[in-house]
Amino acid sequence: MQNCGYAQMYTNTNMRLKLPITCFILEIILIILFGVLVEYDKETDARKWHHSNHSEYDNDFYYRYPSFQDVHVMIFIGFGFLMTFLQRYGFSSVGFNFLIAALALQWATLMQGFFHGMHGGKIHVGVESMINADFCTGSVLISFGAVLGKTSPVQLLVMAVFEVTLFAVNEFILLSLLGTKDAGGSMTIHTFGAYFGLMVARVLYRPNLHKSKHKNSSVYHSDMFAMIGTLYLWMFWPSFNSAITAHGDDQHRTALNTYYSLAACTLSTYAMSALTAHDGKLDMVHIQNAALAGGVAAGTAGEMMLTPFGSMIVGFLAGIISVLGYKYLSPILESKLKIQDTCGVHNLHGMPGVMGAIVGAVTASLATKEIYGDGLIQIIFCLGFIMKLPIYGAPSDASCFEDSIYWEVSSKKLLETSKLCICPQPKKHCNYTIGYVNVHLICSRQFQPLDVDLEPHHCVLLACGKAAFPNEVSI
Amino acid sequence: MQNCGYAQMYTNTNMRLKLPITCFILEIILIILFGVLVEYDKETDARKWHHSNHSEYDNDFYYRYPSFQDVHVMIFIGFGFLMTFLQRYGFSSVGFNFLIAALALQWATLMQGFFHGMHGGKIHVGVESMINADFCTGSVLISFGAVLGKTSPVQLLVMAVFEVTLFAVNEFILLSLLGTKDAGGSMTIHTFGAYFGLMVARVLYRPNLHKSKHKNSSVYHSDMFAMIGTLYLWMFWPSFNSAITAHGDDQHRTALNTYYSLAACTLSTYAMSALTAHDGKLDMVHIQNAALAGGVAAGTAGEMMLTPFGSMIVGFLAGIISVLGYKYLSPILESKLKIQDTCGVHNLHGMPGVMGAIVGAVTASLATKEIYGDGLIQIIFCLGFIMKLPIYGAPSDASCFEDSIYWEVSSKKLLETSKLCICPQPKKHCNYTIGYVNVHLICSRQFQPLDVDLEPHHCVLLACGKAAFPNEVSI
Amino acid sequence: MQNCGYAQMYTNTNMRLKLPITCFILEIILIILFGVLVEYDKETDARKWHHSNHSEYDNDFYYRYPSFQDVHVMIFIGFGFLMTFLQRYGFSSVGFNFLIAALALQWATLMQGFFHGMHGGKIHVGVESMINADFCTGSVLISFGAVLGKTSPVQLLVMAVFEVTLFAVNEFILLSLLGTKDAGGSMTIHTFGAYFGLMVARVLYRPNLHKSKHKNSSVYHSDMFAMIGTLYLWMFWPSFNSAITAHGDDQHRTALNTYYSLAACTLSTYAMSALTAHDGKLDMVHIQNAALAGGVAAGTAGEMMLTPFGSMIVGFLAGIISVLGYKYLSPILESKLKIQDTCGVHNLHGMPGVMGAIVGAVTASLATKEIYGDGLIQIIFCLGFIMKLPIYGAPSDASCFEDSIYWEVSSKKLLETSKLCICPQPKKHCNYTIGYVNVHLICSRQFQPLDVDLEPHHCVLLACGKAAFPNEVSI
Repeated sequence: MQNCGYAQMYTNTNMRLKLPITCFILEIILIILFGVLVEYDKETDARKWHHSNHSEYDNDFYYRYPSFQDVHVMIFIGFGFLMTFLQRYGFSSVGFNFLIAALALQWATLMQGFFHGMHGGKIHVGVESMINADFCTGSVLISFGAVLGKTSPVQLLVMAVFEVTLFAVNEFILLSLLGTKDAGGSMTIHTFGAYFGLMVARVLYRPNLHKSKHKNSSVYHSDMFAMIGTLYLWMFWPSFNSAITAHGDDQHRTALNTYYSLAACTLSTYAMSALTAHDGKLDMVHIQNAALAGGVAAGTAGEMMLTPFGSMIVGFLAGIISVLGYKYLSPILESKLKIQDTCGVHNLHGMPGVMGAIVGAVTASLATKEIYGDGLIQIIFCLGFIMKLPIYGAPSDASCFEDSIYWEVSSKKLLETSKLCICPQPKKHCNYTIGYVNVHLICSRQFQPLDVDLEPHHCVLLACGKAAFPNEVSI
Repeated sequence: MQNCGYAQMYTNTNMRLKLPITCFILEIILIILFGVLVEYDKETDARKWHHSNHSEYDNDFYYRYPSFQDVHVMIFIGFGFLMTFLQRYGFSSVGFNFLIAALALQWATLMQGFFHGMHGGKIHVGVESMINADFCTGSVLISFGAVLGKTSPVQLLVMAVFEVTLFAVNEFILLSLLGTKDAGGSMTIHTFGAYFGLMVARVLYRPNLHKSKHKNSSVYHSDMFAMIGTLYLWMFWPSFNSAITAHGDDQHRTALNTYYSLAACTLSTYAMSALTAHDGKLDMVHIQNAALAGGVAAGTAGEMMLTPFGSMIVGFLAGIISVLGYKYLSPILESKLKIQDTCGVHNLHGMPGVMGAIVGAVTASLATKEIYGDGLIQIIFCLGFIMKLPIYGAPSDASCFEDSIYWEVSSKKLLETSKLCICPQPKKHCNYTIGYVNVHLICSRQFQPLDVDLEPHHCVLLACGKAAFPNEVSI
Repeated sequence: MQNCGYAQMYTNTNMRLKLPITCFILEIILIILFGVLVEYDKETDARKWHHSNHSEYDNDFYYRYPSFQDVHVMIFIGFGFLMTFLQRYGFSSVGFNFLIAALALQWATLMQGFFHGMHGGKIHVGVESMINADFCTGSVLISFGAVLGKTSPVQLLVMAVFEVTLFAVNEFILLSLLGTKDAGGSMTIHTFGAYFGLMVARVLYRPNLHKSKHKNSSVYHSDMFAMIGTLYLWMFWPSFNSAITAHGDDQHRTALNTYYSLAACTLSTYAMSALTAHDGKLDMVHIQNAALAGGVAAGTAGEMMLTPFGSMIVGFLAGIISVLGYKYLSPILESKLKIQDTCGVHNLHGMPGVMGAIVGAVTASLATKEIYGDGLIQIIFCLGFIMKLPIYGAPSDASCFEDSIYWEVSSKKLLETSKLCICPQPKKHCNYTIGYVNVHLICSRQFQPLDVDLEPHHCVLLACGKAAFPNEVSI
């Protein structure tokens, strides 16, 4: 009952050198490459801008920056808090989201700049590159959702570097070579991010993940925090899909279509959530995720003349498919295909993304297999094996979904996890680890065994007794 | 002490069929009506927009969309989280807010489109219709605040459909027939939403609501979540009031006036909150709500040349009135008029809305009675009785303000509710329902009664003892 | 062990008259001065605006208001929630932040209007004055961070009035007399706010603050709330630094530079946080604060042609310096200089602000000492002594960092604080104050002393026993 072996399991998860070395090397490489390759675009550079003759108000900043800020909120608050639903992985969810997003947006600026066409050997940056970099970052965060709780921050940084690179290649093939239109990124962002993450999750499959199963769930307040993420994603999805479309009616229409798609999706999500529960109770997992599927599905076709009518049908169906995925497909993915998809990104980004691509009447997606061959898949599997090298400090099976491996966690958060502990001897000092709390007791008299059967994780109890008068410490 | 009768009370609240049927029918009707009636307006439609000759940057999207996004945040985050103050109604507050808002904005697009004038039999949609639909939704959410915790989601959907329809009629009468100016909606949104909600609350009066009184209060963290809602409403109220005013100085001035009204209101709210407490301690209810009254009161006159000076006086008085309302009027409303106004919408939206209308020197509000006669009131009372039909799965008196009726709630949220439970027999298995937690115990020896008197709701205690050595399980 | 003396210590903290009187007097003065001195600027006034010939879309509202809203979110949500990290000072953090910000922005409008140049004896207000007032408010909130938990709301209001005045003088000297450029306020906002707050903290030094040391720390959920503040500050910092720069490429470039500075800062912050922890675990204090230093440091030079390369170097170094400050400098500040800097504003705003000023190649900051002489410091020390007068209801040493002095706090938040309490006598009623919870017990039989040694703050235990069968109340 005492966690004597914990120290051992944790030894390799010490990030004292691994994380700083990785961060410093990556950031220094980035700074050098930015120094060599990056310069302001013509709307951002003082000389270039003032060289031509226009009003200051014509600067694209005024027509793109509000959209950028909305997207930025989706990346850092939306994705970050959506993943805080886990009961004791909140620091990691929002904190690692923060870290890998900060890396990915820098790396994406370089990779996308490289593929989008350089100007005299230079990558030009401005508000449009900022939005594109945030988009690419979104894709990495979707993949993060699939492996949430099972990786170290160093693994995530490695994944981000690879994924951003492949994202830029994929985007280049789809948008530049095939001429696909995909402003909201149903394909380039959501489908790519989801299947990338799922493949990584497949390679990192943990047969003994049930050891930390009790932590792979939510508590009341963690679900409330996750709703902050959900709502920001939901509210700003019209900005996301329209951020990079052509100015004027295009941008206006995309926002409008997405707005209706999401509204219809929300109603079908609530309906399906109640319908698929045996007692008709709504499931927070569905509300937090499936209600967003309408935004994903409207990503490709959102800028077209889809009409509000068409958008609502798309959203309506996306909500239904997504809830069904969470309910029936996710368990199959885990048991049959050995894909442990923590956040269910297949249901939120995968299927609705494919649906969005089909709605966009994009045959490109069908041609994908021919173009890529198996090259992309092989690269991802390579990445998976790189990520499996025992050098990153990944958590043990029993310590997945657990903040305290990588974060200083206040001992005050003591009540949500529990263990039944008993004093082995009277008059002895003894230490217990309950969740991640160390409790130190001195038993005063004779020990009396407990004889209480608890539902798993319900209660915590420390008993430390004298013969006639026991003292209890509740946590 | 065991909750033997709970299952019975809950039987009719099963949403497995009621909610999906309602959602599906409503959404399918909406989709069909949108297909028949709705088309893009000239700023959103590719052909119409490119037909005329203008810069892409002239599209109203660039001058309205940032305001729309702020209003959108107020609707989903602002109203949603403001109502999460209840200790265990957070899922419902933010979740039902989400559901009925998603419905209302679609229905409002149709109703407002119909009354605002159709174009060749078609309703035109674009960013302006989106803002108007969100405004109407806001009115429904205000009414939701009055009945919060006492209705099923199906009842709320029915209420939303009726209220949106009446809102559109009322708006048409005030703005089109009477020519009133009410950009920030002191009358059309706040006064209407508040009194609509209060009348519904009157009809749904529950004489035995005291049975769930202990749940009709906040806990520390729920108050923190509610502050998120408050602050977003407060910060974006200048955008709300100015979202639909004429472009140029009008919009600029409205935002400015609202900003000063809110600032002054905040100071008077803090002052009154301390002054009306016997120990001078600030009350979160006042801060969360009354500090917003300045925005409501500046709704009508905000676009006029009210001056910052005038705005501050309006806000200052609104804060005072609102706190006094919470302190002295709400108890009277409940005891004398039998109106159980959960969120105190009368104090936040009702009185300040009326004040705003008066400030706007709008005699229209005085003419209201004559124009409407008692028609509106009768319709609302009809709605109330429709909502009282025993088919919607409304919660019992004892299960009001309780998420677990309609939501899957993790058993981990165990500490904030409590009950004193004792093992009836030694050596027996026994199950307790504490709050919504099931605890399973095996008593090992002889039971010993507890003799502890607790302040209501303070503590939770499970005792399960042996003769000489009891074991306690704290939850 | 019984908190018999608590009532006495609290007597002077009763805000029933102090707070209302202060608020009412200040607000009434403000309203009068606004009535006499303030008028709409030419973009906000109906007559002035329509007098000249321009499109409604040329109104500066459309080019500044989105930036204003982002800054507004930083002030109320960003600063407000960043300070909620304290375990039971959440109401005060976000609530006093709200109060003093609402005051400061009104007072700042007057002070800045006075120094920025009046127009025919009138102060002109519009979206630009709103942004400037929010900036000045930001400075006050930085100082609030230094004294967080140790002051009464009345003291804070007094501090705000003084600081806003001095801020306007300082800004006038730096920007108007010395001609410094400091759009993002590295000097005027951050350095000024930080050192102002530190000097006030010095004067208010409490040698016995260790009495409330156990409350001067975070719990799990309070850290999650604080991350909301952090992320909003981080995301909108590009808007903050660019809000008031010249239109066109300047504004565009400033946002871009800040964005890269923050991204690089985030990576170096994570690296340093892991590196400086003996077990490699990340520290929430660093992530919440130091990751923002890149925004502070890019405040002055952000609008210049710093290049993304330069911005990233600045941010990278700012993160390193800031984490080192939290780790090594803050303890020295307290022990040697007697500055108890609750939020570590020296590390987040002080040093990075100075660094930003140096990066901006601003010699002005070096000339500061000569210009100001010791005048400024003397004024601040005067303010400190004014704030020390025993009339404001400041908390006792033992009741610092504690919401329940100034707020009605629900007794439900009972689990995160603890005390070991025992019934003094059998068959007696006894009341305990555990944290801010009053528990009422009746002991049924003879009291038995507890003999349990707990790690500080880990557990809470109430024992109230019969001879052979004690009853435990866990909180």
